[in-house]
Amino acid sequence: MSDLFGPLFGNPAVDRELSSAAWVRAMLDFERALFAVSARAGIVPPGEFPSVEVDPAALGSAALASGNPVVPLVSLLRSVQPWAHHGATSQDVLDTAMSLVARRALAPLRADLAAVASSCARLAAAHRDTVMAGRTLYQQAVPTTFGLKCAGWLVALDRATERLCDVELAVQFGGAAGTLAVTGDLVGELAAELDLSAPLLPWHTDRTRVADLACALGTVAGVLGKIAGDVLLLSQTEVGEVAEGTGGGSSAMPHKQNPTRSVLVSACTRRTPGLVQTLLAQMPQEHERAGGAWHAEWETVTELLRLVGGAALHARELLAGLRVDGERMRHNLGLTEGLVMSEHLATVLGRATAQAAVAEAARTGKPLRDVLLADPGVSLDVQEIDRVLDPGDALGSAGAFVDRVLAGRGGEEAT
Amino acid sequence: MSDLFGPLFGNPAVDRELSSAAWVRAMLDFERALFAVSARAGIVPPGEFPSVEVDPAALGSAALASGNPVVPLVSLLRSVQPWAHHGATSQDVLDTAMSLVARRALAPLRADLAAVASSCARLAAAHRDTVMAGRTLYQQAVPTTFGLKCAGWLVALDRATERLCDVELAVQFGGAAGTLAVTGDLVGELAAELDLSAPLLPWHTDRTRVADLACALGTVAGVLGKIAGDVLLLSQTEVGEVAEGTGGGSSAMPHKQNPTRSVLVSACTRRTPGLVQTLLAQMPQEHERAGGAWHAEWETVTELLRLVGGAALHARELLAGLRVDGERMRHNLGLTEGLVMSEHLATVLGRATAQAAVAEAARTGKPLRDVLLADPGVSLDVQEIDRVLDPGDALGSAGAFVDRVLAGRGGEEAT
Amino acid sequence: MSDLFGPLFGNPAVDRELSSAAWVRAMLDFERALFAVSARAGIVPPGEFPSVEVDPAALGSAALASGNPVVPLVSLLRSVQPWAHHGATSQDVLDTAMSLVARRALAPLRADLAAVASSCARLAAAHRDTVMAGRTLYQQAVPTTFGLKCAGWLVALDRATERLCDVELAVQFGGAAGTLAVTGDLVGELAAELDLSAPLLPWHTDRTRVADLACALGTVAGVLGKIAGDVLLLSQTEVGEVAEGTGGGSSAMPHKQNPTRSVLVSACTRRTPGLVQTLLAQMPQEHERAGGAWHAEWETVTELLRLVGGAALHARELLAGLRVDGERMRHNLGLTEGLVMSEHLATVLGRATAQAAVAEAARTGKPLRDVLLADPGVSLDVQEIDRVLDPGDALGSAGAFVDRVLAGRGGEEAT
Amino acid sequence: MSDLFGPLFGNPAVDRELSSAAWVRAMLDFERALFAVSARAGIVPPGEFPSVEVDPAALGSAALASGNPVVPLVSLLRSVQPWAHHGATSQDVLDTAMSLVARRALAPLRADLAAVASSCARLAAAHRDTVMAGRTLYQQAVPTTFGLKCAGWLVALDRATERLCDVELAVQFGGAAGTLAVTGDLVGELAAELDLSAPLLPWHTDRTRVADLACALGTVAGVLGKIAGDVLLLSQTEVGEVAEGTGGGSSAMPHKQNPTRSVLVSACTRRTPGLVQTLLAQMPQEHERAGGAWHAEWETVTELLRLVGGAALHARELLAGLRVDGERMRHNLGLTEGLVMSEHLATVLGRATAQAAVAEAARTGKPLRDVLLADPGVSLDVQEIDRVLDPGDALGSAGAFVDRVLAGRGGEEAT
Repeated sequence: MSDLFGPLFGNPAVDRELSSAAWVRAMLDFERALFAVSARAGIVPPGEFPSVEVDPAALGSAALASGNPVVPLVSLLRSVQPWAHHGATSQDVLDTAMSLVARRALAPLRADLAAVASSCARLAAAHRDTVMAGRTLYQQAVPTTFGLKCAGWLVALDRATERLCDVELAVQFGGAAGTLAVTGDLVGELAAELDLSAPLLPWHTDRTRVADLACALGTVAGVLGKIAGDVLLLSQTEVGEVAEGTGGGSSAMPHKQNPTRSVLVSACTRRTPGLVQTLLAQMPQEHERAGGAWHAEWETVTELLRLVGGAALHARELLAGLRVDGERMRHNLGLTEGLVMSEHLATVLGRATAQAAVAEAARTGKPLRDVLLADPGVSLDVQEIDRVLDPGDALGSAGAFVDRVLAGRGGEEAT
Repeated sequence: MSDLFGPLFGNPAVDRELSSAAWVRAMLDFERALFAVSARAGIVPPGEFPSVEVDPAALGSAALASGNPVVPLVSLLRSVQPWAHHGATSQDVLDTAMSLVARRALAPLRADLAAVASSCARLAAAHRDTVMAGRTLYQQAVPTTFGLKCAGWLVALDRATERLCDVELAVQFGGAAGTLAVTGDLVGELAAELDLSAPLLPWHTDRTRVADLACALGTVAGVLGKIAGDVLLLSQTEVGEVAEGTGGGSSAMPHKQNPTRSVLVSACTRRTPGLVQTLLAQMPQEHERAGGAWHAEWETVTELLRLVGGAALHARELLAGLRVDGERMRHNLGLTEGLVMSEHLATVLGRATAQAAVAEAARTGKPLRDVLLADPGVSLDVQEIDRVLDPGDALGSAGAFVDRVLAGRGGEEAT
Repeated sequence: MSDLFGPLFGNPAVDRELSSAAWVRAMLDFERALFAVSARAGIVPPGEFPSVEVDPAALGSAALASGNPVVPLVSLLRSVQPWAHHGATSQDVLDTAMSLVARRALAPLRADLAAVASSCARLAAAHRDTVMAGRTLYQQAVPTTFGLKCAGWLVALDRATERLCDVELAVQFGGAAGTLAVTGDLVGELAAELDLSAPLLPWHTDRTRVADLACALGTVAGVLGKIAGDVLLLSQTEVGEVAEGTGGGSSAMPHKQNPTRSVLVSACTRRTPGLVQTLLAQMPQEHERAGGAWHAEWETVTELLRLVGGAALHARELLAGLRVDGERMRHNLGLTEGLVMSEHLATVLGRATAQAAVAEAARTGKPLRDVLLADPGVSLDVQEIDRVLDPGDALGSAGAFVDRVLAGRGGEEAT
Repeated sequence: MSDLFGPLFGNPAVDRELSSAAWVRAMLDFERALFAVSARAGIVPPGEFPSVEVDPAALGSAALASGNPVVPLVSLLRSVQPWAHHGATSQDVLDTAMSLVARRALAPLRADLAAVASSCARLAAAHRDTVMAGRTLYQQAVPTTFGLKCAGWLVALDRATERLCDVELAVQFGGAAGTLAVTGDLVGELAAELDLSAPLLPWHTDRTRVADLACALGTVAGVLGKIAGDVLLLSQTEVGEVAEGTGGGSSAMPHKQNPTRSVLVSACTRRTPGLVQTLLAQMPQEHERAGGAWHAEWETVTELLRLVGGAALHARELLAGLRVDGERMRHNLGLTEGLVMSEHLATVLGRATAQAAVAEAARTGKPLRDVLLADPGVSLDVQEIDRVLDPGDALGSAGAFVDRVLAGRGGEEAT
């Protein structure tokens, strides 16, 4: 993580749990738990687990000789307590540390996701009836509401967050080749000690857990990227329907208010699919421990957590401060002079009559209202025509959808 | 799917459900169900849903004008039944068709996965006590059993298959911009009619379901790739511990028996992470329908199902015919003249004594047994030394692990 | 390639060269050339090379046994001409066929790219002075011209196309393990016969050529995706600065003219980075022939050529018919009431005075022109202020840049 | 870059040029050069460019408000020299800094690649005639030499390194929207001042240069991954044909010598394809500056350079110390009791006779030599049979290939 760029794509609360010091702490947590559990089981003599000072950078340098940081850490520990790491292998330490690091980093990350969801719910409730253009393939299509858009963000985020909560973070303990040849099966005790799941088998080369974590994070990122993308499009100069609370300045153009939070969410989430792919591609890990594919996971998992953490934080701030311009939404809905109502028109007048009117309006550039008024085949009076062309009358289930989504969340948005 | 290469990377039973004809059938299933449901609800007049002959290739060509095949399909349908597709949008049809296609393709795919799992269970049971070298970082480490290796494959596959079974395949119905402005909410009825899940909201630009499917398929592929990779390594000329039932020939070398099934599983699964990444990267779909990101899904999802289908079929055949050479496994375990027993030795003699003996053996090239016999610090007699050096005595929980895994499956492997 | 979706993401002229029949033809071209060259060198007896009818589907099915389609093809050939394939290995055939297939598919693809470039040049020349908003981070920033935008597309495309032209398509001939143990070195002759490059060594597991092809195609796709993305944004309902010649219809909304070509270009190019990644990830091919990584290339290279072919064709049609609305461009430039001129203002009035005026305009919502007129610190008269606020006066090197780019292309755009 | 894992996957000499401080230095280099060039051109008043102390971490934190670190850097500079950054935009600074950072990081990286190439050349020369098994699809196929294998590594690396040297690292200077509206065209002068290429146009949203750099790095990584992969396979316990000079230890198994350098090269290069994909996927950058896709490049390019730097350093050490066991190579070649000679046999005896003999040997398990001696259809005497079965006699062009490759490098390996 770079001092310079790190703050842009990270999240202080998450980053803290991903630091080198946090990894070392998690590795020590494993060793301490293993020693405690082994001593209780009478496998190692009772004794003190050493309270060592570990400099992550020194450990990192020392790791070069063996290819992983556990070997020098164990040397350090055993110089004080010879029974440390008894029966374990490097991967037991690093995989368990990964589970611990992920659990600790996910706590603030999930808090940010919950805040994003709350903002979505609040906006959905507040804008349940705020009419705007529904847009498909970058073109105005038919009316919808901003509330429904926010409810859609919310439902997607809830689904993605659920995946993330379902990820099983397990202890790893198998010994040199996964047989626990030295200690016997202490997995359950160790899992309890560390408050992690106990796996059915050691998972040294069963990387489904890593894949689950990666996929869940990638899915969350996709949803956050969707939200940011919509905000970027809606805040374009020519659209102007939403704006970030405090946009960013420009080094060249003092008037510009850039949608900085959305840009940063977008930047973070654009980098996650490649990392998920990297982790999935490492799943075929050979034999009882992989030479390369496993090592490729450490920084990649860290980076994935960091970027999704950054995206969640920026999305939280983005939605917390989002300004919504309902008037502009309604104004933009009028840009097509009624064409956006063509679907609704067809349900009232029949498809053939409606299409003929729409086609004439599109051909002549006349407002659809005028075309309809002049059309002898249309038996509606002016007020009826105005109602037919009122977007608020063509919202279908939008309101009911918002209500349903919010009801499912127990009305938290009311607060 | 190419005539030439398709058979190598596909699965006839799965491919059938992924064909152009299968997609068209699924699209028609949606339209028929929508018409039936709408007629029952009195939203469209009662009538006959047309029984049309659709040529997928003609539809494909006609799709170019509008950018999707639904537009020409609807024209065709409406020429017979004007109320067809009433209130729906192209994406309703294609997304629902994707769910149907996936469900139908997953049936044979899951049957193949079940067969792979059965073979793993059978091999785990049969080789519960077949001793072999556990290998880490491509080097022999400590003894394990082939049964435990197969149990590890099984546990990973079960976990991955569970993900796949959990994927929610939902109906899509939202109309032009997801508000169901024309028909009102028929989603539940439509879902029941098509035997798909009913989503909380239209999911036109909530692509978490596509992500779930992609991730589950990618995870299954990773596990199959792991199995194939192990077989490739174990069947090397110099290792020879397993062999495919019927290896493939070579165009240049008549004596060679290539591990063809493993190669094909590997080839299929090497291509899946990039496809999962492509689908995750398409999640940020703009507004109410994406211009490009959605279109990028159709062939990608199809291809992903196809490749995992191919991998599953080849893995099934691979394991069904796998020949296991237990003698060679034990022979290879002796290649290091006892060094592979060093961890076990340390548990018996203490780490210092054991390491000194191992170091001397490694330095002098003498068998470890001779070194131990000559070592005055070792108080074991010949028989004791032989037992200490017997791999079968150093398997830790391997057998118990196998038993536990098989017990969890209800003893199916016994048949 | 699917009948249903294939036409949307392909290119008939390119697809023809990527078909199963085209691959078989290329494989036969290798075998015929090898036989001819070997016969001329006296390595095989003179004779007739068989004129066989090969059904790609039958070959595909037969390929399953050995894992590649060369083995059954050689059986077929040798039943007529026993000296066919003498000294060659399957990979010699398939790699050379890949080079031939790529060369043949690249011909129409490059013609389409040339047409895209010509359209860019034509548009750059025609709109050299068409003022529009330069947009950064989705916000209007300062004025630019549509001509410069098109010149930017052109320069990027020229750079990418140059990469594609530089890709070395080489013959492959090494025999079973790359030593040409049977025939001796006929590589130069074979390369000449097939009009391919002669490599320094057999490249069975040196996949830099595949990487070069993949990267060049991925880069071209990136540029085409950029062009399509700009058109999608510029053709939004609220922007309306460009429109596709003939947009696509909608199944639900008769008035909509969708930017179909741009959508399809976007769809194709969104799928290419994952395929490039897949090919790069296959570069570490083990020993003298890979078991899996090589096989993973065949369909992936084909698919990559197909999608870039589709993107090029759609981009060609997109630009050939693009309608540009210069009036709307100038209109949109006025949406910020002069704020878009703030950078230019600073160069005239000094940064401090300009920023104060811009800030007041932004705060009060007053047009910048009125603020400047009322500002006692601004010593310009009305005409001078109007000139300062004229976007056409603030275009910097835009025109010169366009001229420079077009001059470098020899004025082809003049035709 | 993590303190803990960073040393494993990095390269001190490269990492130094990628640090936050190095990025800040490069940003300041741009600003200083712009000021110097502008002052010389009379665009800004002559003056002193400030010598500021910049804390990267403080800059990083301050970057959050605007979304990039240039805005706070410019504030700092302008507090001293108001004409700093005159006419430039943030992207001018960061893109130019990226070019400078890349150039500086590539210097030590290319030195390491040159050392890897020298080692390949040295090994190719030394083992020109060291016979070993050529292996295809993980099976022994026909004889080759270790020299030819090393020559193959060398040719691939030379091709990949050439790509890397061809990457054009250009200055970026376009001002707010690429028109140089403020300063006029100083690009050539600026390029000369910074010793970078001068682009035809500003390339704010033409990311072909980033793609070129990414692809070249990805290709180099692929070649290094191939070398490491071969070493991992050849150093397996059961193969033992090569060994790393100083393997790494294990935390559980004192006897193990792990192929640590190969593992680390493999780990680094497994992570690069996903990063290349990420950069290619960001090529479609909207309008005149992208909101997200551009920001996604900064850390990704840095990471890609870092990982390829790490791979190059580890590969350098790997090959510098590689121990080659020619005896074991010849021993392994005998494992198939002559079957590996079947292709050669066919060239001598004719395919039919040879295949029959090979088939009988494979069926009966008898050495091929005995089968041939007993075969009345084989008219060779014992010495002739022994010569036919001598791998050294079946190497085809292997030696000539090595000579050709080394000759092309001017005999550097002789030293």
